[in-house]
Amino acid sequence: MKKTNVLYQHGTLALLVPGLLAGTITLKELMEHGDTGIGTGEGLNGEVVIIEGKPYQFDSFGHANLLKEDFTLPFANAHFSAYQSIGQLTGADSTKFAAAGLNNRPNSNTFFSILAKGTFSYIKTRAVVKSERPFDTLAATAKKQSIFEAHDVQGTLLSYYSPELFHGAAVAGYHNHFIADDLSIGGHILDFQIKQAKLFKQVFDTLEQHLPVDNQEFMEHDFDVDGDLGEVISKAE
Amino acid sequence: MKKTNVLYQHGTLALLVPGLLAGTITLKELMEHGDTGIGTGEGLNGEVVIIEGKPYQFDSFGHANLLKEDFTLPFANAHFSAYQSIGQLTGADSTKFAAAGLNNRPNSNTFFSILAKGTFSYIKTRAVVKSERPFDTLAATAKKQSIFEAHDVQGTLLSYYSPELFHGAAVAGYHNHFIADDLSIGGHILDFQIKQAKLFKQVFDTLEQHLPVDNQEFMEHDFDVDGDLGEVISKAE
Repeated sequence: MKKTNVLYQHGTLALLVPGLLAGTITLKELMEHGDTGIGTGEGLNGEVVIIEGKPYQFDSFGHANLLKEDFTLPFANAHFSAYQSIGQLTGADSTKFAAAGLNNRPNSNTFFSILAKGTFSYIKTRAVVKSERPFDTLAATAKKQSIFEAHDVQGTLLSYYSPELFHGAAVAGYHNHFIADDLSIGGHILDFQIKQAKLFKQVFDTLEQHLPVDNQEFMEHDFDVDGDLGEVISKAE
Repeated sequence: MKKTNVLYQHGTLALLVPGLLAGTITLKELMEHGDTGIGTGEGLNGEVVIIEGKPYQFDSFGHANLLKEDFTLPFANAHFSAYQSIGQLTGADSTKFAAAGLNNRPNSNTFFSILAKGTFSYIKTRAVVKSERPFDTLAATAKKQSIFEAHDVQGTLLSYYSPELFHGAAVAGYHNHFIADDLSIGGHILDFQIKQAKLFKQVFDTLEQHLPVDNQEFMEHDFDVDGDLGEVISKAE
Protein backbone atom coordinates (compact mmCIF):
# COMPACT_ATOMS: atom_id res chain seq x y z
CA MET A 1 0.00 0.00 0.00
CA LYS A 2 1.29 3.45 -0.88
CA LYS A 3 1.88 5.48 2.24
CA THR A 4 0.51 8.97 1.74
CA ASN A 5 1.56 10.13 5.24
CA VAL A 6 5.28 9.89 4.46
CA LEU A 7 7.63 12.46 2.95
CA TYR A 8 10.68 10.64 1.61
CA GLN A 9 13.97 12.51 1.43
CA HIS A 10 17.18 11.18 -0.10
CA GLY A 11 20.32 13.02 0.99
CA THR A 12 20.35 16.30 2.88
CA LEU A 13 20.78 19.89 1.81
CA ALA A 14 23.82 19.94 4.11
CA LEU A 15 25.70 17.50 1.91
CA LEU A 16 25.30 19.79 -1.10
CA VAL A 17 27.11 22.60 0.77
CA PRO A 18 30.65 21.14 0.50
CA GLY A 19 29.88 19.79 -2.99
CA LEU A 20 29.05 16.14 -2.23
CA LEU A 21 27.14 16.11 -5.51
CA ALA A 22 27.48 12.46 -6.60
CA GLY A 23 24.18 10.98 -7.75
CA THR A 24 23.47 8.48 -4.98
CA ILE A 25 19.96 7.40 -5.90
CA THR A 26 18.46 6.57 -9.29
CA LEU A 27 15.21 8.10 -10.42
CA LYS A 28 13.74 4.59 -10.47
CA GLU A 29 14.64 4.06 -6.79
CA LEU A 30 13.33 7.52 -5.88
CA MET A 31 10.00 6.94 -7.57
CA GLU A 32 9.44 3.80 -5.51
CA HIS A 33 8.79 6.39 -2.79
CA GLY A 34 6.47 8.68 -4.70
CA ASP A 35 4.76 9.91 -7.85
CA THR A 36 5.41 13.54 -6.90
CA GLY A 37 8.68 15.21 -5.97
CA ILE A 38 11.55 17.61 -6.46
CA GLY A 39 15.32 17.25 -6.63
CA THR A 40 18.48 17.91 -8.58
CA GLY A 41 20.77 15.74 -10.71
CA GLU A 42 24.37 14.67 -10.11
CA GLY A 43 26.61 17.74 -10.06
CA LEU A 44 23.50 19.88 -9.40
CA ASN A 45 22.33 19.03 -12.90
CA GLY A 46 19.24 21.18 -13.26
CA GLU A 47 16.02 21.18 -11.27
CA VAL A 48 13.74 18.15 -11.11
CA VAL A 49 9.96 18.31 -10.82
CA ILE A 50 7.89 15.13 -10.67
CA ILE A 51 4.15 15.59 -11.08
CA GLU A 52 1.59 12.80 -11.57
CA GLY A 53 4.37 10.28 -12.06
CA LYS A 54 6.12 12.27 -14.81
CA PRO A 55 9.70 13.27 -13.96
CA TYR A 56 10.97 16.39 -15.71
CA GLN A 57 14.33 18.13 -15.46
CA PHE A 58 14.65 21.82 -16.25
CA ASP A 59 18.27 22.35 -17.23
CA SER A 60 20.41 25.48 -17.29
CA PHE A 61 19.74 25.92 -21.03
CA GLY A 62 16.04 26.31 -20.32
CA HIS A 63 15.11 22.90 -21.71
CA ALA A 64 12.55 20.59 -20.15
CA ASN A 65 13.72 16.98 -20.39
CA LEU A 66 11.66 13.91 -19.53
CA LEU A 67 14.05 11.91 -17.34
CA LYS A 68 15.02 8.28 -17.70
CA GLU A 69 15.02 5.77 -14.85
CA ASP A 70 18.83 5.70 -14.58
CA PHE A 71 19.17 9.46 -13.96
CA THR A 72 20.89 9.91 -10.60
CA LEU A 73 20.33 12.51 -7.90
CA PRO A 74 22.31 13.64 -4.81
CA PHE A 75 19.20 15.15 -3.19
CA ALA A 76 15.47 14.67 -3.70
CA ASN A 77 12.08 14.62 -2.04
CA ALA A 78 9.20 12.38 -3.08
CA HIS A 79 5.77 11.33 -1.84
CA PHE A 80 2.61 9.67 -3.06
CA SER A 81 0.04 12.28 -3.96
CA ALA A 82 -3.10 12.53 -1.81
CA TYR A 83 -3.74 16.26 -1.76
CA GLN A 84 -6.87 17.88 -0.34
CA SER A 85 -8.30 21.07 -1.78
CA ILE A 86 -7.82 24.09 0.50
CA GLY A 87 -9.44 26.71 -1.73
CA GLN A 88 -7.96 29.15 -4.17
CA LEU A 89 -5.86 32.30 -4.35
CA THR A 90 -6.33 35.36 -6.56
CA GLY A 91 -3.63 38.00 -6.99
CA ALA A 92 -1.26 36.54 -4.44
CA ASP A 93 2.48 36.94 -3.92
CA SER A 94 4.73 34.51 -2.04
CA THR A 95 3.74 36.00 1.33
CA LYS A 96 0.03 35.41 0.73
CA PHE A 97 0.78 31.93 -0.63
CA ALA A 98 2.86 31.10 2.47
CA ALA A 99 0.09 32.29 4.81
CA ALA A 100 -2.58 30.31 2.94
CA GLY A 101 -0.50 27.12 3.09
CA LEU A 102 0.00 27.62 6.82
CA ASN A 103 -3.67 28.45 7.53
CA ASN A 104 -2.43 31.91 8.55
CA ARG A 105 -0.33 30.48 11.38
CA PRO A 106 3.31 31.67 11.67
CA ASN A 107 4.80 28.22 11.10
CA SER A 108 4.16 24.48 11.10
CA ASN A 109 5.72 21.83 13.29
CA THR A 110 5.28 19.11 10.71
CA PHE A 111 6.14 18.60 7.04
CA PHE A 112 3.54 19.26 4.35
CA SER A 113 3.26 19.83 0.61
CA ILE A 114 1.28 22.42 -1.34
CA LEU A 115 0.28 22.36 -4.99
CA ALA A 116 -0.84 25.60 -6.61
CA LYS A 117 -2.38 24.98 -10.04
CA GLY A 118 -3.45 27.86 -12.23
CA THR A 119 -2.23 31.02 -13.90
CA PHE A 120 0.88 32.82 -12.69
CA SER A 121 1.11 36.48 -13.70
CA TYR A 122 4.88 36.29 -13.03
CA ILE A 123 7.31 33.47 -12.46
CA LYS A 124 11.09 33.62 -11.95
CA THR A 125 13.02 30.36 -11.75
CA ARG A 126 16.61 29.25 -11.74
CA ALA A 127 18.36 26.12 -12.90
CA VAL A 128 21.89 25.48 -11.76
CA VAL A 129 24.68 24.67 -14.23
CA LYS A 130 25.95 21.09 -13.92
CA SER A 131 29.28 20.95 -12.15
CA GLU A 132 31.83 18.27 -13.12
CA ARG A 133 34.14 16.37 -10.75
CA PRO A 134 35.73 17.61 -8.61
CA PHE A 135 32.36 19.18 -7.82
CA ASP A 136 32.00 22.81 -6.76
CA THR A 137 30.58 23.83 -3.40
CA LEU A 138 26.91 24.85 -3.26
CA ALA A 139 27.82 28.53 -2.89
CA ALA A 140 30.11 28.42 -5.98
CA THR A 141 27.55 26.45 -8.01
CA ALA A 142 24.71 28.76 -7.05
CA LYS A 143 26.64 31.64 -8.62
CA LYS A 144 26.58 29.85 -11.98
CA GLN A 145 22.83 29.54 -12.25
CA SER A 146 20.62 30.44 -15.21
CA ILE A 147 17.62 32.64 -14.48
CA PHE A 148 14.34 32.38 -16.36
CA GLU A 149 11.31 34.67 -16.23
CA ALA A 150 7.84 34.55 -17.74
CA HIS A 151 4.49 36.30 -17.50
CA ASP A 152 0.96 34.90 -17.60
CA VAL A 153 1.95 31.23 -17.51
CA GLN A 154 -0.32 28.28 -16.77
CA GLY A 155 1.40 25.78 -14.56
CA THR A 156 1.91 24.07 -11.23
CA LEU A 157 3.90 25.20 -8.23
CA LEU A 158 5.00 22.20 -6.13
CA SER A 159 6.12 23.13 -2.65
CA TYR A 160 7.47 21.24 0.35
CA TYR A 161 7.39 22.82 3.80
CA SER A 162 9.86 21.70 6.48
CA PRO A 163 9.81 22.73 10.16
CA GLU A 164 12.59 25.02 11.40
CA LEU A 165 14.00 22.13 13.49
CA PHE A 166 14.98 20.30 10.30
CA HIS A 167 16.81 23.21 8.63
CA GLY A 168 20.06 21.79 7.31
CA ALA A 169 18.61 18.38 6.55
CA ALA A 170 15.97 20.21 4.49
CA VAL A 171 15.31 23.91 3.81
CA ALA A 172 13.26 25.33 6.68
CA GLY A 173 10.01 26.76 5.39
CA TYR A 174 8.87 26.40 1.78
CA HIS A 175 10.98 24.90 -1.03
CA ASN A 176 9.20 25.66 -4.31
CA HIS A 177 9.65 24.20 -7.78
CA PHE A 178 7.60 25.10 -10.88
CA ILE A 179 6.51 23.40 -14.06
CA ALA A 180 4.57 25.18 -16.82
CA ASP A 181 1.77 23.18 -18.46
CA ASP A 182 3.47 23.67 -21.86
CA LEU A 183 6.94 23.01 -20.31
CA SER A 184 8.10 26.45 -21.51
CA ILE A 185 9.51 27.32 -18.06
CA GLY A 186 10.25 25.49 -14.84
CA GLY A 187 12.80 24.87 -12.10
CA HIS A 188 13.56 26.17 -8.62
CA ILE A 189 11.33 29.18 -7.92
CA LEU A 190 13.01 32.47 -6.97
CA ASP A 191 9.88 34.64 -7.19
CA PHE A 192 6.29 34.35 -8.29
CA GLN A 193 2.94 36.08 -8.45
CA ILE A 194 -0.25 34.06 -8.63
CA LYS A 195 -3.00 35.45 -10.86
CA GLN A 196 -5.47 32.75 -9.95
CA ALA A 197 -4.73 29.27 -8.66
CA LYS A 198 -6.38 26.36 -6.88
CA LEU A 199 -4.52 25.26 -3.77
CA PHE A 200 -4.08 21.68 -2.56
CA LYS A 201 -2.40 20.53 0.65
CA GLN A 202 -1.06 17.20 1.93
CA VAL A 203 0.18 16.91 5.52
CA PHE A 204 2.81 14.31 6.45
CA ASP A 205 3.34 12.77 9.90
CA THR A 206 6.61 11.09 8.91
CA LEU A 207 9.89 12.16 7.33
CA GLU A 208 11.69 9.15 5.92
CA GLN A 209 15.24 10.50 5.77
CA HIS A 210 17.47 8.28 3.65
CA LEU A 211 21.24 8.86 3.70
CA PRO A 212 23.80 7.76 1.04
CA VAL A 213 25.72 5.45 3.38
CA ASP A 214 27.35 3.60 0.46
CA ASN A 215 29.02 6.82 -0.69
CA GLN A 216 32.46 6.95 0.90
CA GLU A 217 32.95 10.67 0.29
CA PHE A 218 29.75 11.43 2.20
CA MET A 219 30.48 9.02 5.02
CA GLU A 220 34.03 10.33 5.52
CA HIS A 221 33.29 14.04 5.10
CA ASP A 222 33.92 16.30 8.11
CA PHE A 223 30.98 18.72 8.09
CA ASP A 224 32.59 20.73 10.88
CA VAL A 225 34.83 22.43 8.31
CA ASP A 226 31.90 23.70 6.22
CA GLY A 227 30.98 26.60 8.51
CA ASP A 228 27.38 27.44 9.34
CA LEU A 229 25.49 24.98 7.12
CA GLY A 230 22.13 26.55 7.90
CA GLU A 231 23.30 30.00 6.78
CA VAL A 232 24.86 28.74 3.53
CA ILE A 233 21.69 26.81 2.69
CA SER A 234 19.45 29.80 3.44
CA LYS A 235 21.53 31.97 1.07
CA ALA A 236 21.74 29.41 -1.75
CA GLU A 237 18.13 28.20 -1.63
CA MET B 1 9.76 -8.03 6.22
CA LYS B 2 11.42 -6.29 9.12
CA LYS B 3 13.60 -3.43 7.94
CA THR B 4 16.91 -3.53 9.81
CA ASN B 5 18.26 -0.44 8.00
CA VAL B 6 15.74 1.90 9.62
CA LEU B 7 15.93 3.80 12.91
CA TYR B 8 12.42 4.79 13.91
CA GLN B 9 11.93 7.88 16.05
CA HIS B 10 8.65 9.08 17.52
CA GLY B 11 8.61 12.71 18.61
CA THR B 12 11.69 14.89 18.89
CA LEU B 13 13.90 15.92 21.78
CA ALA B 14 12.93 19.50 20.91
CA LEU B 15 9.33 18.90 21.92
CA LEU B 16 10.40 17.80 25.39
CA VAL B 17 12.10 21.18 25.98
CA PRO B 18 8.91 23.25 26.48
CA GLY B 19 7.23 20.30 28.26
CA LEU B 20 5.14 18.79 25.46
CA LEU B 21 5.17 15.56 27.46
CA ALA B 22 1.85 13.96 26.47
CA GLY B 23 2.21 10.29 25.58
CA THR B 24 1.53 10.34 21.83
CA ILE B 25 2.42 6.77 20.92
CA THR B 26 1.58 3.51 22.67
CA LEU B 27 4.25 0.96 23.40
CA LYS B 28 2.35 -1.43 21.12
CA GLU B 29 2.56 1.03 18.21
CA LEU B 30 6.24 1.73 18.95
CA MET B 31 7.15 -1.94 18.95
CA GLU B 32 5.68 -2.37 15.48
CA HIS B 33 8.88 -0.50 14.53
CA GLY B 34 11.36 -2.51 16.57
CA ASP B 35 12.31 -5.07 19.17
CA THR B 36 15.02 -2.78 20.56
CA GLY B 37 14.75 0.80 21.73
CA ILE B 38 14.82 3.60 24.27
CA GLY B 39 12.37 6.29 25.36
CA THR B 40 10.51 7.90 28.20
CA GLY B 41 6.91 7.75 29.42
CA GLU B 42 4.22 10.45 29.48
CA GLY B 43 5.34 13.30 31.73
CA LEU B 44 8.95 12.01 31.43
CA ASN B 45 7.88 8.96 33.38
CA GLY B 46 11.17 7.13 33.88
CA GLU B 47 13.57 5.73 31.32
CA VAL B 48 12.57 3.00 28.90
CA VAL B 49 14.92 0.29 27.61
CA ILE B 50 13.68 -2.33 25.14
CA ILE B 51 16.03 -5.26 24.57
CA GLU B 52 15.19 -8.45 22.69
CA GLY B 53 11.53 -7.48 22.57
CA LYS B 54 11.23 -6.91 26.34
CA PRO B 55 10.23 -3.35 27.30
CA TYR B 56 11.38 -2.20 30.73
CA GLN B 57 10.90 1.10 32.50
CA PHE B 58 13.32 2.23 35.19
CA ASP B 59 11.39 4.67 37.35
CA SER B 60 12.58 7.40 39.71
CA PHE B 61 12.15 5.04 42.69
CA GLY B 62 14.74 2.69 41.22
CA HIS B 63 12.23 0.04 40.21
CA ALA B 64 12.37 -1.90 36.97
CA ASN B 65 8.87 -2.39 35.57
CA LEU B 66 7.93 -4.58 32.63
CA LEU B 67 5.72 -2.30 30.57
CA LYS B 68 2.26 -3.01 29.18
CA GLU B 69 1.22 -2.37 25.61
CA ASP B 70 -0.90 0.67 26.50
CA PHE B 71 1.98 2.57 28.14
CA THR B 72 2.36 5.86 26.24
CA LEU B 73 5.51 7.79 25.34
CA PRO B 74 6.20 11.35 24.11
CA PHE B 75 9.62 10.37 22.69
CA ALA B 76 11.19 7.07 21.70
CA ASN B 77 13.58 5.32 19.35
CA ALA B 78 13.16 1.77 18.09
CA HIS B 79 14.66 -0.57 15.52
CA PHE B 80 14.79 -4.24 14.62
CA SER B 81 17.97 -5.79 15.94
CA ALA B 82 20.58 -6.96 13.41
CA TYR B 83 23.83 -6.13 15.19
CA GLN B 84 27.26 -7.19 13.98
CA SER B 85 30.08 -7.94 16.40
CA ILE B 86 32.83 -5.29 16.36
CA GLY B 87 35.07 -6.81 19.03
CA GLN B 88 35.37 -6.10 22.72
CA LEU B 89 36.55 -3.49 25.18
CA THR B 90 38.49 -3.97 28.42
CA GLY B 91 38.88 -1.19 30.98
CA ALA B 92 37.17 1.49 28.92
CA ASP B 93 35.55 4.77 29.85
CA SER B 94 32.98 6.66 27.75
CA THR B 95 35.72 8.22 25.60
CA LYS B 96 37.17 4.85 24.62
CA PHE B 97 33.66 3.49 24.07
CA ALA B 98 32.81 6.43 21.81
CA ALA B 99 35.97 5.98 19.75
CA ALA B 100 35.39 2.24 19.36
CA GLY B 101 31.83 2.79 18.17
CA LEU B 102 33.07 5.33 15.63
CA ASN B 103 35.99 3.19 14.40
CA ASN B 104 38.26 5.91 15.83
CA ARG B 105 36.85 8.53 13.49
CA PRO B 106 35.77 11.91 14.98
CA ASN B 107 32.12 11.52 14.02
CA SER B 108 29.61 9.71 11.85
CA ASN B 109 27.35 11.15 9.17
CA THR B 110 24.72 8.48 9.62
CA PHE B 111 22.74 7.00 12.49
CA PHE B 112 23.88 3.81 14.20
CA SER B 113 23.34 1.80 17.36
CA ILE B 114 25.86 0.14 19.67
CA LEU B 115 25.26 -2.60 22.21
CA ALA B 116 27.89 -3.20 24.90
CA LYS B 117 27.24 -6.43 26.81
CA GLY B 118 29.38 -7.42 29.73
CA THR B 119 30.61 -6.24 33.12
CA PHE B 120 30.61 -2.59 34.08
CA SER B 121 32.99 -1.65 36.90
CA TYR B 122 30.94 1.54 37.38
CA ILE B 123 27.57 2.72 36.20
CA LYS B 124 25.71 5.94 37.02
CA THR B 125 22.17 6.38 35.72
CA ARG B 126 19.32 8.78 36.16
CA ALA B 127 15.58 8.40 35.97
CA VAL B 128 13.44 11.50 35.79
CA VAL B 129 10.49 12.01 38.15
CA LYS B 130 7.13 11.90 36.39
CA SER B 131 5.66 15.35 35.93
CA GLU B 132 1.88 15.86 36.04
CA ARG B 133 -0.16 18.22 33.85
CA PRO B 134 0.55 21.05 33.31
CA PHE B 135 3.89 19.42 32.51
CA ASP B 136 7.20 20.99 33.51
CA THR B 137 9.82 22.06 30.99
CA LEU B 138 12.70 19.68 30.29
CA ALA B 139 15.13 21.86 32.26
CA ALA B 140 12.82 21.93 35.32
CA THR B 141 12.13 18.20 35.09
CA ALA B 142 15.81 17.33 34.69
CA LYS B 143 16.45 18.98 38.06
CA LYS B 144 14.07 16.50 39.72
CA GLN B 145 15.87 13.37 38.62
CA SER B 146 16.91 10.42 40.76
CA ILE B 147 20.52 9.28 40.46
CA PHE B 148 21.58 5.65 40.81
CA GLU B 149 25.08 4.20 41.03
CA ALA B 150 26.48 0.68 41.11
CA HIS B 151 29.79 -1.15 40.83
CA ASP B 152 30.66 -4.40 39.07
CA VAL B 153 27.33 -4.90 37.35
CA GLN B 154 26.56 -7.28 34.51
CA GLY B 155 24.36 -5.66 31.94
CA THR B 156 23.76 -4.09 28.57
CA LEU B 157 24.41 -0.57 27.40
CA LEU B 158 22.14 0.36 24.48
CA SER B 159 23.29 3.40 22.57
CA TYR B 160 21.97 5.38 19.60
CA TYR B 161 24.29 7.71 17.71
CA SER B 162 22.86 10.65 15.74
CA PRO B 163 24.80 12.94 13.36
CA GLU B 164 25.35 16.56 14.46
CA LEU B 165 22.98 17.74 11.70
CA PHE B 166 20.05 16.14 13.53
CA HIS B 167 20.76 17.67 16.95
CA GLY B 168 17.43 18.96 18.22
CA ALA B 169 15.39 16.24 16.56
CA ALA B 170 17.66 13.75 18.36
CA VAL B 171 20.66 14.20 20.69
CA ALA B 172 23.78 14.65 18.54
CA GLY B 173 26.33 11.95 19.35
CA TYR B 174 25.59 9.04 21.65
CA HIS B 175 22.41 8.64 23.70
CA ASN B 176 22.98 5.77 26.15
CA HIS B 177 20.55 3.75 28.25
CA PHE B 178 21.45 0.84 30.55
CA ILE B 179 19.80 -2.31 31.83
CA ALA B 180 21.39 -4.65 34.36
CA ASP B 181 20.94 -8.38 33.74
CA ASP B 182 19.34 -8.70 37.20
CA LEU B 183 17.33 -5.45 36.68
CA SER B 184 18.98 -3.98 39.82
CA ILE B 185 19.88 -0.76 37.98
CA GLY B 186 19.05 0.90 34.69
CA GLY B 187 17.98 4.10 32.97
CA HIS B 188 19.61 6.99 31.15
CA ILE B 189 23.39 6.72 31.55
CA LEU B 190 25.25 9.68 33.05
CA ASP B 191 28.62 7.93 33.44
CA PHE B 192 30.08 4.47 33.07
CA GLN B 193 33.25 2.42 33.09
CA ILE B 194 33.43 -0.85 31.19
CA LYS B 195 35.38 -3.65 32.87
CA GLN B 196 34.97 -6.02 29.96
CA ALA B 197 32.27 -5.99 27.29
CA LYS B 198 31.50 -7.32 23.85
CA LEU B 199 30.56 -4.61 21.35
CA PHE B 200 27.94 -4.89 18.62
CA LYS B 201 27.08 -2.29 15.97
CA GLN B 202 24.17 -1.74 13.59
CA VAL B 203 24.33 1.03 10.99
CA PHE B 204 21.13 2.62 9.65
CA ASP B 205 20.70 4.33 6.28
CA THR B 206 17.27 5.72 7.16
CA LEU B 207 15.76 7.77 9.96
CA GLU B 208 12.00 7.35 10.03
CA GLN B 209 11.00 10.47 11.94
CA HIS B 210 7.39 10.28 13.10
CA LEU B 211 5.74 13.41 14.52
CA PRO B 212 2.65 13.56 16.79
CA VAL B 213 0.49 15.47 14.30
CA ASP B 214 -2.73 14.52 16.12
CA ASN B 215 -1.54 16.31 19.27
CA GLN B 216 -2.92 19.83 19.12
CA GLU B 217 -0.51 21.20 21.74
CA PHE B 218 2.47 20.03 19.68
CA MET B 219 1.07 21.25 16.38
CA GLU B 220 0.22 24.70 17.77
CA HIS B 221 3.35 25.21 19.86
CA ASP B 222 5.64 28.10 18.90
CA PHE B 223 9.15 26.69 19.31
CA ASP B 224 10.64 30.14 18.68
CA VAL B 225 9.89 31.08 22.31
CA ASP B 226 11.89 28.17 23.73
CA GLY B 227 15.33 29.71 23.18
CA ASP B 228 18.26 27.67 21.89
CA LEU B 229 16.75 24.17 21.77
CA GLY B 230 20.10 22.57 20.96
CA GLU B 231 21.75 24.09 24.03
CA VAL B 232 18.92 23.09 26.40
CA ILE B 233 18.97 19.53 25.05
CA SER B 234 22.75 19.25 25.38
CA LYS B 235 22.52 20.36 29.04
CA ALA B 236 19.61 18.10 29.96
CA GLU B 237 20.73 14.98 28.10
